[in-house]
Amino acid sequence: MLDYQTLLEKTCQHVEPFSHQGEVATYIPALAEQKKGQFAIALQTIDGKVYSAGDVSNKFTVQSVSKALTLTMALQRYGDDLWLRVGKEPSGTAFNSLTQLEFEQGKPRNPFINAGAIVTADALYSRLSAPIHAVLEKFRAQSGNSNVVINRTVANSEYQHRYRNAAMAYLMKSFGNFDNDVEKVLWSYFNYCAIEVNVIELAKTFSYLSNKGVCLQSGEQVISAKQTKQLNSLLFTSGLYDAAGDFAYRVGMPGKSGVSGTIIAVLPGQFTAAVWSPGLDSFGNSVAGIAALEYLAEYVNH
Amino acid sequence: MLDYQTLLEKTCQHVEPFSHQGEVATYIPALAEQKKGQFAIALQTIDGKVYSAGDVSNKFTVQSVSKALTLTMALQRYGDDLWLRVGKEPSGTAFNSLTQLEFEQGKPRNPFINAGAIVTADALYSRLSAPIHAVLEKFRAQSGNSNVVINRTVANSEYQHRYRNAAMAYLMKSFGNFDNDVEKVLWSYFNYCAIEVNVIELAKTFSYLSNKGVCLQSGEQVISAKQTKQLNSLLFTSGLYDAAGDFAYRVGMPGKSGVSGTIIAVLPGQFTAAVWSPGLDSFGNSVAGIAALEYLAEYVNH
Amino acid sequence: MLDYQTLLEKTCQHVEPFSHQGEVATYIPALAEQKKGQFAIALQTIDGKVYSAGDVSNKFTVQSVSKALTLTMALQRYGDDLWLRVGKEPSGTAFNSLTQLEFEQGKPRNPFINAGAIVTADALYSRLSAPIHAVLEKFRAQSGNSNVVINRTVANSEYQHRYRNAAMAYLMKSFGNFDNDVEKVLWSYFNYCAIEVNVIELAKTFSYLSNKGVCLQSGEQVISAKQTKQLNSLLFTSGLYDAAGDFAYRVGMPGKSGVSGTIIAVLPGQFTAAVWSPGLDSFGNSVAGIAALEYLAEYVNH
Amino acid sequence: MLDYQTLLEKTCQHVEPFSHQGEVATYIPALAEQKKGQFAIALQTIDGKVYSAGDVSNKFTVQSVSKALTLTMALQRYGDDLWLRVGKEPSGTAFNSLTQLEFEQGKPRNPFINAGAIVTADALYSRLSAPIHAVLEKFRAQSGNSNVVINRTVANSEYQHRYRNAAMAYLMKSFGNFDNDVEKVLWSYFNYCAIEVNVIELAKTFSYLSNKGVCLQSGEQVISAKQTKQLNSLLFTSGLYDAAGDFAYRVGMPGKSGVSGTIIAVLPGQFTAAVWSPGLDSFGNSVAGIAALEYLAEYVNH
Repeated sequence: MLDYQTLLEKTCQHVEPFSHQGEVATYIPALAEQKKGQFAIALQTIDGKVYSAGDVSNKFTVQSVSKALTLTMALQRYGDDLWLRVGKEPSGTAFNSLTQLEFEQGKPRNPFINAGAIVTADALYSRLSAPIHAVLEKFRAQSGNSNVVINRTVANSEYQHRYRNAAMAYLMKSFGNFDNDVEKVLWSYFNYCAIEVNVIELAKTFSYLSNKGVCLQSGEQVISAKQTKQLNSLLFTSGLYDAAGDFAYRVGMPGKSGVSGTIIAVLPGQFTAAVWSPGLDSFGNSVAGIAALEYLAEYVNH
Repeated sequence: MLDYQTLLEKTCQHVEPFSHQGEVATYIPALAEQKKGQFAIALQTIDGKVYSAGDVSNKFTVQSVSKALTLTMALQRYGDDLWLRVGKEPSGTAFNSLTQLEFEQGKPRNPFINAGAIVTADALYSRLSAPIHAVLEKFRAQSGNSNVVINRTVANSEYQHRYRNAAMAYLMKSFGNFDNDVEKVLWSYFNYCAIEVNVIELAKTFSYLSNKGVCLQSGEQVISAKQTKQLNSLLFTSGLYDAAGDFAYRVGMPGKSGVSGTIIAVLPGQFTAAVWSPGLDSFGNSVAGIAALEYLAEYVNH
Repeated sequence: MLDYQTLLEKTCQHVEPFSHQGEVATYIPALAEQKKGQFAIALQTIDGKVYSAGDVSNKFTVQSVSKALTLTMALQRYGDDLWLRVGKEPSGTAFNSLTQLEFEQGKPRNPFINAGAIVTADALYSRLSAPIHAVLEKFRAQSGNSNVVINRTVANSEYQHRYRNAAMAYLMKSFGNFDNDVEKVLWSYFNYCAIEVNVIELAKTFSYLSNKGVCLQSGEQVISAKQTKQLNSLLFTSGLYDAAGDFAYRVGMPGKSGVSGTIIAVLPGQFTAAVWSPGLDSFGNSVAGIAALEYLAEYVNH
Repeated sequence: MLDYQTLLEKTCQHVEPFSHQGEVATYIPALAEQKKGQFAIALQTIDGKVYSAGDVSNKFTVQSVSKALTLTMALQRYGDDLWLRVGKEPSGTAFNSLTQLEFEQGKPRNPFINAGAIVTADALYSRLSAPIHAVLEKFRAQSGNSNVVINRTVANSEYQHRYRNAAMAYLMKSFGNFDNDVEKVLWSYFNYCAIEVNVIELAKTFSYLSNKGVCLQSGEQVISAKQTKQLNSLLFTSGLYDAAGDFAYRVGMPGKSGVSGTIIAVLPGQFTAAVWSPGLDSFGNSVAGIAALEYLAEYVNH
């Protein structure tokens, strides 16, 4: 029988050298301050047990991992109608971002590239009276920690560097695929990215992805079992930007990464894992984080 | 000896059928109200004489023809340093607009595509305390009519449909090629486009392009003779968007068009012409306007 | 306990209306002759049992499904070195085919788009003295039918319409990523596509994908268990061209489609399935084939 | 009164430092052997007089300058019908070559980019029983030297490096815009590029461009005066690849360049000039050649 605690500790040892590799994100000061050499991993199995190892108490902002939760919340409210505004296909290269968006007339390729997450945020904005509060409360309820907060320094800093994201939002607006005020939606979007957690809280937040849509903390059926399988398929094909194929090849699990150096990965019917290590590869994904999940994947049955 | 007045009258007759063709611009209400079947032409020879025919007293907004004057004003202030921020090459297709801008890292291909005119407006904004007033005064001085005004309804309407231009401006800003507030620069840009003239005023405004840089109304050496030759070369290769090559092939003169249905054309050492007819072809250029200039070109020596 | 035979028969009934939809491929006469209204499905479970329903004895050419086998044969010979010549990432849109190949300097995005399969064929060509024979023999051994043949009419017809594929091959050659004679490699490639099977033979040929790399007919460890998992991940992210994301969303299994109307799908540890129905959707995938696999996926545990 | 001989000698002195700059083309051995530090210039005025200075007797292959003559010969045979197969618009960047061709469905942007010259060669191939001979004879007749020959070493070497051009030809063929055998047309195309001349012969060959279509050597009306003006407009907007705009800005004359380091330039009604110096800038245009034409342009009236 597999001993998860031992496995996580061995993973920690295995990836220690990798945790010094890569470069931390530098486009905003708050992220640039992160130190390499740190690593944490946690997983929650579908019986509710939590295992962890490494720098478990360290906090970090969720960044693009928030896109998986805001997509979930948009699917709760719009169902398949959401796909009228955003696609389900992998996106090709980063270089394409605006190119692709222009060529495809303002409909982002999938909900995990920035344009897709921003249009999802616009959709949520239309249905929630206090969207930032609502997403934060969702994180709190699903992580089981009502003290989860937003790092306002990070949110402000992201907003000050919003130009490229603003360009995408205005381009979508020119195609009629953006309903609310660009600046307000972007402010909400950056707040979602700036929610601060540790790996245990993050693994718990996404427990529903391994558990047929039911959150192990709140007990809520967040989305249906079928929707959960669909969302995992999207994460499998598109969760790691331009490295989605390589991640699938090496790890073989649905996942989502963020530039703070965090990644979640899902083994349906078994567990949701979260890793964190700030050193990033050239695709913006955590070097040690991917190495850890690749190592973990060798030992788990799927 | 060539009789310009007769030539312009014959041109009017020749293009009458074309003036009913094409479609008026519809993206803003003020332009959509223009009626087809109208046509006007004027030219000013370098000895200062003015010839005209057709609906000469009709007013229209200059739209993109303003780009030639704002570029001139930016060259006065920056000289060749302006080319650090905007290129001198033809742009290929419309479809490329943001694609090309992204691929070339925020430096627009030339000053006559929208992105290039917007970055030029940003440059002017940095050097003028009252940029809208300054450009308007320039039009007044060079057209010889101090009553030229801005059509505020058009300016407001353009601003309300600014999304695609805002996307370009924010994309340039993300690449560090935009210095001022996006909304303020766009507002100035739309005001330049909304300056209202008739064909005689327009031909006079650009008399310096055929006269080695000296305005026939103000007597000012607006730009040097060498700069004038350079600007005419740019107009030749890039003045009519995606139809620049076709215009060069058919007309063979430097030119600049606007979506109100106006076009200026320059025969260096001889005259500057202006035409106006609201019906546009699929490239956004006046059908009768191009036909008129093509007809005119057959009769003038160059 | 799940009764596969009943499930396949119910699937047949379910998709009957879909089998009349879509359009058969028309770019070569041999494919254009296929009739709509036909459907067949087969699967082989990892205990070796075979189930089937519908027009099971009907033969069709494997077309792009051959890419999964030629990739396997190239991985046997080159291992991970193959990835120096072809990527592992999803490809974005069809429109991109040559665009992407040019931008990425002759390295195809993945082995399932045409350019990627052609470079894989070039790699095989360098290592096999009789490549067409070798691939045919592999199909025979793994399908358990030594009478599988190549449809030469189809191969010839594809070759006569080779121009776009030739363009890709020459473009790769210009970047130094093509070793052999373009025409000869294309001839081999079209022969692989023209291998003729029925759904039972096809499901058996790919049994190793659900069985940790071991073929249920030949008993051979075709590729390692780890390689098999990797290959399934690639099929999941890139197996259905521009509809890979939609297929993942609806079916959630690794798969590969061909323009003859066939699709294989893999449920690791359980079975390999093959379907066939000639009516294609706008992405070139079998309408009834996808509907069948989507229906099947609802009933099997994964 | 302008003394051309003095002007050319002053030009020689002026550009001497530039002749050591840039890099000679290296993609084929025959071009790589050219030495920097050489320069030659010649011009023929419309009264038939020839002026020259520098390394006037040095021979070089015409390379892409041949495109101006093959286009002329195609216009003789097809007139405006040629524009059904090739466009008249500037092309944007080199990077776009296949991208643009794919996006625009196999119709090259203009006849001076490689794809456009190849489709023009295909058109000529359909109408000439001995196309290579015919083009060579045209060069001989118009240069006034019946001993002009093709450098077969260069032609062979170009053909061996034909892959990218073959990719374009096959792509056009896939879109139905290529009538003859790809390899045969490419062989003719490379022979046109390998015609060997000196600057005097080259200036004479293109005398018709400054003389309303009449060749000063043969006396033939090669194309009409109107077609000549049109062709000059095309050379103005598209003759120097990605540097067409910059060349227009600096030189302000229609021109065409080749990778052997040669450029022709036309001042309609006055002269046709040819320069040669093998050192190329990053766009593949002769450094000293452009500098010479820029210098020349300052002194001539236009």
